[in-house]
Amino acid sequence: MIRVLEKVELNDPVLVEGLPGVGNVGKLAADYLRDQLKAKPVATIYSKFFPPQVYVSEEGLIRLVSNDLSYAKGKAGGKRDLLILGGDYQGISPEGQYELTHRVLEFCHKLGVREIYTLAGFAQGHVVETPRVLGAATSPPRVTEMKKHGVVFSRNDPGGGLVGASGLFLGLGRTFGMEGVCLMGETSGYFVDPRSAEAVLKVLTGALGIQLDFTDLESKAKEIDRIAQKIHDSEKGSESQAPQSREDLGYIG
Amino acid sequence: MIRVLEKVELNDPVLVEGLPGVGNVGKLAADYLRDQLKAKPVATIYSKFFPPQVYVSEEGLIRLVSNDLSYAKGKAGGKRDLLILGGDYQGISPEGQYELTHRVLEFCHKLGVREIYTLAGFAQGHVVETPRVLGAATSPPRVTEMKKHGVVFSRNDPGGGLVGASGLFLGLGRTFGMEGVCLMGETSGYFVDPRSAEAVLKVLTGALGIQLDFTDLESKAKEIDRIAQKIHDSEKGSESQAPQSREDLGYIG
Amino acid sequence: MIRVLEKVELNDPVLVEGLPGVGNVGKLAADYLRDQLKAKPVATIYSKFFPPQVYVSEEGLIRLVSNDLSYAKGKAGGKRDLLILGGDYQGISPEGQYELTHRVLEFCHKLGVREIYTLAGFAQGHVVETPRVLGAATSPPRVTEMKKHGVVFSRNDPGGGLVGASGLFLGLGRTFGMEGVCLMGETSGYFVDPRSAEAVLKVLTGALGIQLDFTDLESKAKEIDRIAQKIHDSEKGSESQAPQSREDLGYIG
Amino acid sequence: MIRVLEKVELNDPVLVEGLPGVGNVGKLAADYLRDQLKAKPVATIYSKFFPPQVYVSEEGLIRLVSNDLSYAKGKAGGKRDLLILGGDYQGISPEGQYELTHRVLEFCHKLGVREIYTLAGFAQGHVVETPRVLGAATSPPRVTEMKKHGVVFSRNDPGGGLVGASGLFLGLGRTFGMEGVCLMGETSGYFVDPRSAEAVLKVLTGALGIQLDFTDLESKAKEIDRIAQKIHDSEKGSESQAPQSREDLGYIG
Repeated sequence: MIRVLEKVELNDPVLVEGLPGVGNVGKLAADYLRDQLKAKPVATIYSKFFPPQVYVSEEGLIRLVSNDLSYAKGKAGGKRDLLILGGDYQGISPEGQYELTHRVLEFCHKLGVREIYTLAGFAQGHVVETPRVLGAATSPPRVTEMKKHGVVFSRNDPGGGLVGASGLFLGLGRTFGMEGVCLMGETSGYFVDPRSAEAVLKVLTGALGIQLDFTDLESKAKEIDRIAQKIHDSEKGSESQAPQSREDLGYIG
Repeated sequence: MIRVLEKVELNDPVLVEGLPGVGNVGKLAADYLRDQLKAKPVATIYSKFFPPQVYVSEEGLIRLVSNDLSYAKGKAGGKRDLLILGGDYQGISPEGQYELTHRVLEFCHKLGVREIYTLAGFAQGHVVETPRVLGAATSPPRVTEMKKHGVVFSRNDPGGGLVGASGLFLGLGRTFGMEGVCLMGETSGYFVDPRSAEAVLKVLTGALGIQLDFTDLESKAKEIDRIAQKIHDSEKGSESQAPQSREDLGYIG
Repeated sequence: MIRVLEKVELNDPVLVEGLPGVGNVGKLAADYLRDQLKAKPVATIYSKFFPPQVYVSEEGLIRLVSNDLSYAKGKAGGKRDLLILGGDYQGISPEGQYELTHRVLEFCHKLGVREIYTLAGFAQGHVVETPRVLGAATSPPRVTEMKKHGVVFSRNDPGGGLVGASGLFLGLGRTFGMEGVCLMGETSGYFVDPRSAEAVLKVLTGALGIQLDFTDLESKAKEIDRIAQKIHDSEKGSESQAPQSREDLGYIG
Repeated sequence: MIRVLEKVELNDPVLVEGLPGVGNVGKLAADYLRDQLKAKPVATIYSKFFPPQVYVSEEGLIRLVSNDLSYAKGKAGGKRDLLILGGDYQGISPEGQYELTHRVLEFCHKLGVREIYTLAGFAQGHVVETPRVLGAATSPPRVTEMKKHGVVFSRNDPGGGLVGASGLFLGLGRTFGMEGVCLMGETSGYFVDPRSAEAVLKVLTGALGIQLDFTDLESKAKEIDRIAQKIHDSEKGSESQAPQSREDLGYIG
């Protein structure tokens, strides 16, 4: 496991985690937040727990798969800074998930992080027109606070608990004395879902007192809608090809 | 692997292990013992050898999957204390099983443990009305002693030996100079089986000289019976759906 | 990984390895050699690279799965001592195979081992009446010497090389400056094969100048023959059951 | 992980990597380069991340599977030396790939390597008469330079990036301050492809200013052509056997 670091002083920073997962909701949200806030890189995380893979850009340049920490300074004087964790993959083995999460938390702990928001999708298995944001938290006061921001704490969802980075960051975070919330945007689970990411981000920015322009995310959502509609139409013509096309779509966006 | 510890002085403690497994017999028994004796937490074991998962309570609070050590002081002055190991999972890989068991034994060794009882289910593949308790031990005197408490040492069962925590705690325990017994309650293997857990606990409490009220466990057993009966009835109606329902039941209880 | 050691001084010892594998030829041979020479235990090897399993004896006593090193002093004054490695399993992962073999070789190196014989079966896929012993060695002089003892070095067998402990002990042994030979008894691959083990042992004892009584091994071979014949007869009656019975047999002996 | 080293002083060495992979293009190219330049061994890499396997030669001699580093001194006075990495396997797990690549790079870094060429095949799924050489690089100047040598940087190929040693050496190489290029010869993916290896080597030797005689590689290519033709002819006779024969061929050459 290798990290390239750049030194930075942060003001009571909040960690926001959004890695690939169901509907790519967490990743879409974290990446959008990073881009809109023009967050700057703090650290790149390479790891033997990722696939042994490089991406090649259109210009022919390689980039090793990684996770990335960026920071955005709080706009006004007294405001808290943000640390945003995004990336190409979660750890590809259970052990890798634990090791990676622990290392990143250790690093964030040194940067002064005491609070975590993890962003994820919650697969409903059917199309969701106006996605709710479900929640899970580390303490009762946080549940109460999040409810004020419209988060739904459902008795039955998520039934079997959370598997993956979004749960693990909260679970292991507690051993570092960190408190936090997982925000799960409802999604079908079949598509990359910018609309669900928007719902999650609206809760997050509300809770953190951040202003965000959602125009780009909304146009992305409309684009996905158009593709979905096209597939839906072609499905009526040739029923058998449909499922395949659907999956193709799922991971283009 | 991370542990959160709380200091405790114990009087010649006996370790009782009951983790998830066949019919969940061991876990049911250890959890029931812990609850009835109002055992208090000593240590929580988090590990990269568990799944990367958190559970979410009905109140929306997360809890990282773990194993847990609790202790109960011996009632009368001279009596020995109990250490009870329960939890959500066994290690999910063979290597993980060894690493976890070794770490927990190391910790228990420091607390003075010299004797272990491991609790488990033994799958018979058919419904067992009055489950016997089969045994395996680390030394001939223990075999003799356990027979007095009604434990059956069968020439053929378990044929292929024991796989998992219940065997490993005894096998690795010997390298720490610990002696012990594995108590295996007969069970069908299709259901969570509180009746088998009760049989195991009766032997254990007899051997340790502990008084225990079995009312709650018996009502749980009756509840499972009712569900099993229901399924049995519906099976007669629709033969083909039955096996699926059976499995559903297996891990509800 | 844990080892229980007992101190011993050995005279230029030769390591003989025979672990479970094709037709169990290696294990049968090593165990028989150990029993006949009344070899005494040197070390027991427990490892997280074995399955998390204990065996239970007819008396109800548990034994953690292991590999075992035994020694037999050379009969006459000047003769070399033997170290015999047997056990329940090979490492169950490729990494485990390397780690285990390396540790055992390290230990044997300290005991003064400079020469290794590894014993194995070579699956021919059909019944072999009089099994040949195929060979592979670490140096040309050893090939020449082994040919004198009737070992066949075939241009085509084994085609893809050797996978598992028997090859690895030689391959990694060279990094410890050890030389050696792998003796592979031809076998069908369907049965435990004492006859093939006998062929291997005859070459080995010839090369090492050891006298061995093969009576017990031969009666074991005849017993397997009888069972095989029975299955063959019943196959004629009910063709469909045969393959299953065959496999049963394969790992009883 | 074990390495046997031999000391060597190198003049600004370039690392050329060619391990088994698609069409074995990289391995064929690296092995041919090593043989033609009469490169001498620097280090042998044994690893628990390879299969636990030894090869047996026609003479009956064993050889543990490995990767191998060889060097060739630059012909004229001022010319740079070459380090060539070849071998039997890539690491067989993702973690193993990372660990191995990191160790080899560490070793090469100490020998002064600042530049890497990785050689690979790019599967097109159909027969390619005159294979192009596709490229991916660590920096824009290298892209520009490689284009001069006829390398194609395609907007769409390779779409999903590079998986395996050829990408990883570049990706992890950058963390050691190394720059480099991956040269991918187009190939069907069904056959071992010396013609694609030749195309790759022509670009490489052009870029490094090395003279190479391609006669042997060309005759190997013609041999594969002949076998392919034979299979093609027999396919017309018996359509059903063809796919199997094709695969056989794939890994004979």
